[in-house]
Amino acid sequence: MDKFEPKNLPMGTSNAQEKLEVKNWFQQLRDRICYSFESLEEELCEHTNTSSPGKFVPKKWIRDQGLGGGGKMSIMHGHLFEKVGVNISTVHGEFSKEFSDSIPGTRDNSAFWATGISVVAHPQSPLVPAVHMNTRHIVTSKSWFGGGADLTPTIPNDLDAKTFHNALKKGCDKHNPEYYQCFKDWCREYFFLPHRNEERGVGGIFYDYLNTGTFSSDLSFTKTVGLTFLNVYTNIVRQHMQKPWTEKDKEHQLIKRGRYAEFNLLYDRGTQFGLKTGGNIEAILMSMPPNVKWP
Amino acid sequence: MDKFEPKNLPMGTSNAQEKLEVKNWFQQLRDRICYSFESLEEELCEHTNTSSPGKFVPKKWIRDQGLGGGGKMSIMHGHLFEKVGVNISTVHGEFSKEFSDSIPGTRDNSAFWATGISVVAHPQSPLVPAVHMNTRHIVTSKSWFGGGADLTPTIPNDLDAKTFHNALKKGCDKHNPEYYQCFKDWCREYFFLPHRNEERGVGGIFYDYLNTGTFSSDLSFTKTVGLTFLNVYTNIVRQHMQKPWTEKDKEHQLIKRGRYAEFNLLYDRGTQFGLKTGGNIEAILMSMPPNVKWP
Repeated sequence: MDKFEPKNLPMGTSNAQEKLEVKNWFQQLRDRICYSFESLEEELCEHTNTSSPGKFVPKKWIRDQGLGGGGKMSIMHGHLFEKVGVNISTVHGEFSKEFSDSIPGTRDNSAFWATGISVVAHPQSPLVPAVHMNTRHIVTSKSWFGGGADLTPTIPNDLDAKTFHNALKKGCDKHNPEYYQCFKDWCREYFFLPHRNEERGVGGIFYDYLNTGTFSSDLSFTKTVGLTFLNVYTNIVRQHMQKPWTEKDKEHQLIKRGRYAEFNLLYDRGTQFGLKTGGNIEAILMSMPPNVKWP
Repeated sequence: MDKFEPKNLPMGTSNAQEKLEVKNWFQQLRDRICYSFESLEEELCEHTNTSSPGKFVPKKWIRDQGLGGGGKMSIMHGHLFEKVGVNISTVHGEFSKEFSDSIPGTRDNSAFWATGISVVAHPQSPLVPAVHMNTRHIVTSKSWFGGGADLTPTIPNDLDAKTFHNALKKGCDKHNPEYYQCFKDWCREYFFLPHRNEERGVGGIFYDYLNTGTFSSDLSFTKTVGLTFLNVYTNIVRQHMQKPWTEKDKEHQLIKRGRYAEFNLLYDRGTQFGLKTGGNIEAILMSMPPNVKWP
């Protein structure tokens, strides 16, 4: 299967009921993720006899300058999670000429509506991998889903990479036997730092312009991506969160995070897109690691 | 005076003798800067009874993949300077089509030769401002100088900003009474983070495409920029380096450095140019702060 191309998107677009359904799903997923991550925090604190486990702190934001919509960030700083952000947003408006050229379905009408969820976790322990998951639904005169999930360990570990990929493959296979291979390759291509000739992490899946013609199937796949991510990542975290680490491991993690920051600022389309379209700075840069070294 | 425009560059280019003269100057300036910064380290260590002041560690590099030239980085990690890098390089080759369109004098011949010096200092103390200075000479079928110096305090201080700007103004005025105002405005425009609607620091000067038609005058101005920077910055460092600071000041510094990292990766032309033309990653990213927080 080839990567989906904007030019192959079918005509027609999601209706109000469908848009609401996606938006509601992202809210539900956000609640589940926050609940699970807070539970992991509590488990670790119980194990280490630490009081005051981290809690998510929510913060609403609205787009300013007369732009439509807004979102809600939830950020937790804890003992397990040095920084983890879960952001949902639903925005609408008109694309500037600069952008509409590269966005499907905006030739005659630059109006857009978009909803999405984005999760980035930077754990305290260098033995617990960082993770990113994002799914989104974009509506212009066409409509499509996009997203993915990828894992960034400090010290790559074959078992974790295999566990993560196997779970994603199983999730993808339920929907289309060709998805996993295609989206895995797309992920490897996307999360790549050309200036260092290295991948950001150990990959996962990445997809865009998904519209099979059946909204319910595509939403169903989107749900699978979110739930698979949540399930497999919490398993990987539990495998490692109680293990002791060294100062050297931590130093290694802070340097590895420099690559993460480089990727997000130099190459990430979402970051560039958000910063150039007057998005919410705090929400866009929520993904930045809490503490980074370039020694 | 308007900013210099590539289209106004005179015909003709620097000869071998002139190129050598600039290259030698950058080596001399590098030696003076390293000597002065090591002296400041020693002064602070003497004052605080600390042994082992930081020393610059040199590292040569050559451009690989058959590209011509190379350079030498000198990096110091010390008690006063958490990280300071002084990089000189002299490179030559041919611009790719992608770049030559935006570079003067390459329409009929894409060959270039360039030499430059770049300094970025990130002090340990949040009371000592970070600083950047760069000067360069580019030769295609035309030739020109560019560069500047700018100050980035954690906690802006009117006196330091005034001292820094007054010194640059005095230096500029010796060469052309219109330089300072023009280059100051250019600096403010260049070191600006649109997504945060804030300047990177308190400014300084920035210029490019400088070719008055008299090589010796332009080299002389380039020398003034380097020496003025060295003189005024060491004075500012001495004003503050022995003052105690709080944890809160340090936290503020680490967050401020996040803006510095954002600027360099999102907007800095030198960084983007270097990364896209197969430059030396370590030398290009030498400017990144040693320790950064995005809380």
